[in-house]
Amino acid sequence: MTFTHSVNVRYLEVDQQGVVFNGWYLTYFDDAMTAFLVDRGLPYQIMTAAGYDVQLVRSEIDWKAGVGWGDDVRIAVSPSRIGRTSFALDFEVRRHEGESFAVTCLGRTVYVVVAMDGSGKREIPDLIRRALGEPSPLLPIP
Amino acid sequence: MTFTHSVNVRYLEVDQQGVVFNGWYLTYFDDAMTAFLVDRGLPYQIMTAAGYDVQLVRSEIDWKAGVGWGDDVRIAVSPSRIGRTSFALDFEVRRHEGESFAVTCLGRTVYVVVAMDGSGKREIPDLIRRALGEPSPLLPIP
Amino acid sequence: MTFTHSVNVRYLEVDQQGVVFNGWYLTYFDDAMTAFLVDRGLPYQIMTAAGYDVQLVRSEIDWKAGVGWGDDVRIAVSPSRIGRTSFALDFEVRRHEGESFAVTCLGRTVYVVVAMDGSGKREIPDLIRRALGEPSPLLPIP
Amino acid sequence: MTFTHSVNVRYLEVDQQGVVFNGWYLTYFDDAMTAFLVDRGLPYQIMTAAGYDVQLVRSEIDWKAGVGWGDDVRIAVSPSRIGRTSFALDFEVRRHEGESFAVTCLGRTVYVVVAMDGSGKREIPDLIRRALGEPSPLLPIP
Repeated sequence: MTFTHSVNVRYLEVDQQGVVFNGWYLTYFDDAMTAFLVDRGLPYQIMTAAGYDVQLVRSEIDWKAGVGWGDDVRIAVSPSRIGRTSFALDFEVRRHEGESFAVTCLGRTVYVVVAMDGSGKREIPDLIRRALGEPSPLLPIP
Repeated sequence: MTFTHSVNVRYLEVDQQGVVFNGWYLTYFDDAMTAFLVDRGLPYQIMTAAGYDVQLVRSEIDWKAGVGWGDDVRIAVSPSRIGRTSFALDFEVRRHEGESFAVTCLGRTVYVVVAMDGSGKREIPDLIRRALGEPSPLLPIP
Repeated sequence: MTFTHSVNVRYLEVDQQGVVFNGWYLTYFDDAMTAFLVDRGLPYQIMTAAGYDVQLVRSEIDWKAGVGWGDDVRIAVSPSRIGRTSFALDFEVRRHEGESFAVTCLGRTVYVVVAMDGSGKREIPDLIRRALGEPSPLLPIP
Repeated sequence: MTFTHSVNVRYLEVDQQGVVFNGWYLTYFDDAMTAFLVDRGLPYQIMTAAGYDVQLVRSEIDWKAGVGWGDDVRIAVSPSRIGRTSFALDFEVRRHEGESFAVTCLGRTVYVVVAMDGSGKREIPDLIRRALGEPSPLLPIP
């Protein structure tokens, strides 16, 4: 079952075109990732207490439609690739319409695992590997 | 001569009413304070290297009109009160209109000086006192 | 019973001092006001459909302490003054600590009611007056 | 000669890791695009007055390093593909280091041209085509 995170669209995020400004999506994804990890039993504080942090190194976003203030917006999050020191998450932004949800935006972000002490990349530890689980992409893998 | 800081209004700051959302003004004031201190010979990095930081403890803002994207906006900054451990800055947001500037917003912020090591309040050191100079309020003093 | 709104502190709102940057508080208050009006039966969309909007004309904020990422933060909202064309709301930011909540910040914002057609101020209509209810200040009235 | 836009990194944009939070880069690119079009003789207001607007439909960003508060940051902007109804811009974020600039981030954004009246996509008009000029990619074309 794919995890979904509810977004509280804020008034200030909506621009003069009446839709959430594109700059806020990476923030939405960051929030959704945090909530996803909590749901998988790994609050950020536990990860950092264990000496690990993650850094965003790549993002890809495709917009199909906008979302507005007051819309019921959910973001599905799923791991799509798990490597040695990096992993990817897929995001699907869904807007409630009538009886169903329309996908308005697709995103993929790639993170590297780093040591909290500034010494650089680390192999993904079991702590994070267990939380991520099996990859289940929402977008095609190139 | 009152220092003025030019604001580059960003597209994302403008809301559906076509004016900069109120939440951005404290950020504008923060930016304007930084530029004011640089102009007075005190870049933030020098202040912190000397062991001092400032914390915002109070703000008051009065809006008379909005500003929009593409407007020529300047913020005048002037110290209005200098105490033992705290000082106040006054801000005047000015929007260019024809041959002159209209005041669209007035603000006053109060900062306390604190030690960088987390040990709390400090008397305003000469470094900061010299940069602030003589108080010259832009708003009435209560 | 005072209405309280839960805040989801976002990672990007926390600055290098480890606390939510002051510029986000007006956004928190805006969000809390919207939630307060929904709780009182007046979603923003109904207010604007009836031809009314509100504009922020004044804010006062006093910070006593900061809040961080992961903190359980609630904002109490209560009307403190209801005039002919304007009204004030009081805000109390509360951070969960052990068994209780500590007040970390106090705010008061003043709004004027305006017509949606751009024709300016309006007397507070019954629609809004009923939603606000009786004033019950959280801060001293000057 | 590639156009470059100077970025004023704001204090609030820097996160607890001491670098600009990733969510701000799309805002930086939006600002840089606006400045690029002004430099090419096409202020946004002229484009919209002519009945055209642009919508972001895709972005790709690769981060190699972070930038901090007080850094001298420039963003190079160059068109990389010009199609029938859409075009792409490439961005290179450069941080000043000693005598030269280090590339810290690469981005590509794709826009479609739409009518201001909400009637959808339009062929890129001469007005925009002339401003864009010849494509000159900063990143490899897939």
